[in-house]
Amino acid sequence: MAITVVGSVAYDTIETPAGRRERCLGGAATYFSLSASFFTDVRVIAVVGEDFGKRQEAVFQARNIDTRGIEHTAGKSFFWEGSYLENINEAKTHNTELNVFAAFEPKIPEAYSDSEFLFLANIDPVLQRRVREAMPDVKLVAGDTMNYWIKDHRPALLEVLKGLDILLINDTETKMLAGNNNLVQAARAVMALGPKTLVVKHGEYGSTLFHGAKIFRAPALPLEEVIDPTGAGDSFAGGFFGYLAAQRELTPAAYRSAMFYGGVMGSFACERFGTERMQKLTRAEIDARFKLFRELTHLD
Amino acid sequence: MAITVVGSVAYDTIETPAGRRERCLGGAATYFSLSASFFTDVRVIAVVGEDFGKRQEAVFQARNIDTRGIEHTAGKSFFWEGSYLENINEAKTHNTELNVFAAFEPKIPEAYSDSEFLFLANIDPVLQRRVREAMPDVKLVAGDTMNYWIKDHRPALLEVLKGLDILLINDTETKMLAGNNNLVQAARAVMALGPKTLVVKHGEYGSTLFHGAKIFRAPALPLEEVIDPTGAGDSFAGGFFGYLAAQRELTPAAYRSAMFYGGVMGSFACERFGTERMQKLTRAEIDARFKLFRELTHLD
Repeated sequence: MAITVVGSVAYDTIETPAGRRERCLGGAATYFSLSASFFTDVRVIAVVGEDFGKRQEAVFQARNIDTRGIEHTAGKSFFWEGSYLENINEAKTHNTELNVFAAFEPKIPEAYSDSEFLFLANIDPVLQRRVREAMPDVKLVAGDTMNYWIKDHRPALLEVLKGLDILLINDTETKMLAGNNNLVQAARAVMALGPKTLVVKHGEYGSTLFHGAKIFRAPALPLEEVIDPTGAGDSFAGGFFGYLAAQRELTPAAYRSAMFYGGVMGSFACERFGTERMQKLTRAEIDARFKLFRELTHLD
Repeated sequence: MAITVVGSVAYDTIETPAGRRERCLGGAATYFSLSASFFTDVRVIAVVGEDFGKRQEAVFQARNIDTRGIEHTAGKSFFWEGSYLENINEAKTHNTELNVFAAFEPKIPEAYSDSEFLFLANIDPVLQRRVREAMPDVKLVAGDTMNYWIKDHRPALLEVLKGLDILLINDTETKMLAGNNNLVQAARAVMALGPKTLVVKHGEYGSTLFHGAKIFRAPALPLEEVIDPTGAGDSFAGGFFGYLAAQRELTPAAYRSAMFYGGVMGSFACERFGTERMQKLTRAEIDARFKLFRELTHLD
C-alpha cells in the first residue's frame, strides 16, 4: 500500500573522515522515500527551490517515487552543512539555511488521497499536524522528530504525538522527551503521549521496538567503515515503514521483520556519501543483508 | 569441566539512585564464580584479610565453589567504594584500598591443576601472566582487563594477551587498546595481539562476539530499573565462560549461546545490590530469561 511522506528535500554539504561532498541531494523525505521505494509505492510532499532540477528529479523517478507533491517555488532549496570529524555518530552543524522551507505550506495532491500509510518526517510539528489532519483516513501514521522540537516546541509536538501510531526517535530524544534517563521507563512515558509503538534507534548498537507490552531488539551491522551517516535514521524509517506498508497484516512478526529491514537500510545508507548507495541499491542486496542480520543475531 | 578463576574477592561500598550498601561482598572473582557456578565447577584463587569470615565463605559454599585457593592473610581485604549517582552506566570511584591485595602472590592448589578452563579476571597483568604460565595445559583461557592496565601497564598486558584465547572487555577498552575508534577495525587489531575470540560488552546495548571471521550480536535485557550495575561485567563473563566450560564441543553455536547466557547473568546482577541476586538465583530463572532473550531478538 502506498505511503505518503512529508518532509525536507534538501542539499547537504557533508564532511566526514572519508572526505567532503558539496551540495549533495539530501533531506529526510529524500532518504525516507528512496529507502521505502524498495518495498512499496511512495509519494512525496515537500518544497524545493529553483536549484532543484531534472537531475535531482531523476533520482526520484528512477525509483518510481511520485513527486507530484514536490512544490517548486522561487528561491533556493533547504540547505544544511555539517561534519562528523570528531565523532562519526554525531553531526556537528555548521550551517542551516531554511530558504524556501521557511514558508512551506504542505499541499496534498488529490492523487495522494488514497494513501493508507503516512510518514511525518522530522519537520516543524505544526506542519506535521496539519498534514496528519488533512489525511484523517490513513491506516497507519508514523513520525520522527528531533531534540530542537522536543526542547523548544513541546506543546506543538505533543499535539502531533496524539495522532501518531508509531514514533521513531533515538535514545537521547526518547529520554529528553520523557524527562527520564531509564530507557524502558522513558519509552513507557512517551507511549503514554500517543504512539502505541515506539522505535528507539541506538545508532551502531541497533534499535529497540516497544510494541504494546512487547520489546524487541534489532541489531545494527558492525561496519568496518562508516563513510557518511547522514540520512541513516531516515533510511531506517523508510525500510521499517516501507516493509510494514507492504504487508497484508500488521502482525507482531511483521513489526519484528520491519525492525530488521530498518537496520538493513540504515546500514546501506552509511556506506557512501549522501544518497549514493541508496541510488545504486538492488533488492537482491537488501535480501542478502537481511539474511546477514539474521545470522548476526539468531542462535540457530 | 572445571574453571579456575583468579581475581579479587573484596568488599564494596556502593551508592546508586536506589540506595547505599556498606561493605558488601564483591570483587571480580566473586561475581564471576557465583555466575559460572550455575553452569560448571568453579575454583577460586584470591587473597582475603581477617575481615573475610564464615559468613562470606558460606556464600561460596552455597554454590559449591572451591575456595581452597583463597588465601587468608593478616590485614584487611581489598576495598572499593564507588557511586553511580550521575550515570548508572559508569562508576565513579571514591576510594580504592588494595590492602592484602597489594602483596598478592597467586598460589595454585594442587587440587586445581586439572582445571581445563582458566579465567583471568581483571587484576595486574603481571599476576595474570604468572597464573597463565603456571597452568600451561588448560584447554581454554579467557581474561578481562580495564582502562588502567591498558593505559599504564601496556607491555605487561600485551604479554597476557598473547596467552589468551578469549578477551572480554567493553567498547571503550577495545578502542583504547587498539587506538582505533571504529569497533570492527579495533576488534581486528586487538585479535591480532593474541585472542582469537573477542567479546565486546556494550552495557545496556548488549555485546558483540568476534569469533574468527564471524560476528555475532547478543542483546542486553532492557531493565525498568537498574539497582546496582556493579559486577555485571564479571557476571556476564561467568555466564559466558561457565556455559562454554559445560559444553562437550566448542562449536560456533556454543559461542552464540554463551553470549546469550552472558547477557542473562549480567542482567540478573543488576537487579539487586552486590551479589544479592546471584545468591538467590535458580537455574529455572536462568532458563526462563534465556528464553526471553531469544524472544527479544529472534524473528520467529
